[in-house]
Amino acid sequence: MLGRDYPAENCSIARALEVVGERWSLLILRDSLFRGMTQYSEFEESLGLASNVLANRLARFVTEGLLVHDGNRYRPTQMALDLAPVLLALTQWGDAWAAPDGAPVIYHATDKGTLRVEILDEGGHPTDPRLTEIVALPGPGSRST
Amino acid sequence: MLGRDYPAENCSIARALEVVGERWSLLILRDSLFRGMTQYSEFEESLGLASNVLANRLARFVTEGLLVHDGNRYRPTQMALDLAPVLLALTQWGDAWAAPDGAPVIYHATDKGTLRVEILDEGGHPTDPRLTEIVALPGPGSRST
Repeated sequence: MLGRDYPAENCSIARALEVVGERWSLLILRDSLFRGMTQYSEFEESLGLASNVLANRLARFVTEGLLVHDGNRYRPTQMALDLAPVLLALTQWGDAWAAPDGAPVIYHATDKGTLRVEILDEGGHPTDPRLTEIVALPGPGSRST
Repeated sequence: MLGRDYPAENCSIARALEVVGERWSLLILRDSLFRGMTQYSEFEESLGLASNVLANRLARFVTEGLLVHDGNRYRPTQMALDLAPVLLALTQWGDAWAAPDGAPVIYHATDKGTLRVEILDEGGHPTDPRLTEIVALPGPGSRST
């Protein structure tokens, strides 16, 4: 798909954005993961986007392995469920910086209350990104070139 | 900017994507936050994107309050530093699902080791999104309509 790749990048942020960085993609997955939507008509009504765009996005998610198309329902896979931290992190940032009237939505689980995302250090302790200088280091999958 | 808004959405995910959802935006912020890049030429060399696109993105980040332009340097604000959990969450997802050779990059802080992001419940305990049904509920900033 033209203009969707970042070929020079050996970086998991870039690769993640190749799959879910397109306009509407993360909102479709939000509706799938947290609002229980499974049918084309539900996504269409929720998002109000052009039907060819919605159809393309859903088909691509099936190809990529994020959704399974079963009858007339689209159900999220584990690959999609694993995006929950991305969506919650975006929520927290939007709540903090782009929600003057307060959080429009809270994300909640039975017996767990309101959920949030935090950065944890190697020992499992929460770390404030404002007070922490985070640096990128080569990992096991870095290129030797 | 045409096609960048999600006007029907009262959702912090959508609002966050209006600011940082465009192509290249999160990669520029990655380089600013985690790779110490401050100069136009550093971003240009790192990302290899068209100079008019890079100039537009940097100017918009300054307008939105994510970067401060000081002399010939662009420095991240707290608004930008607060995106660290989003970037780390995207990294984890990409490492898990789109990095067959292993994590290309690890994010590290002195005295804290390798950092990761987790969903915490209201009591501060880590919660596995695969085992948790997360639901969206109206928050204090929800519209009454």
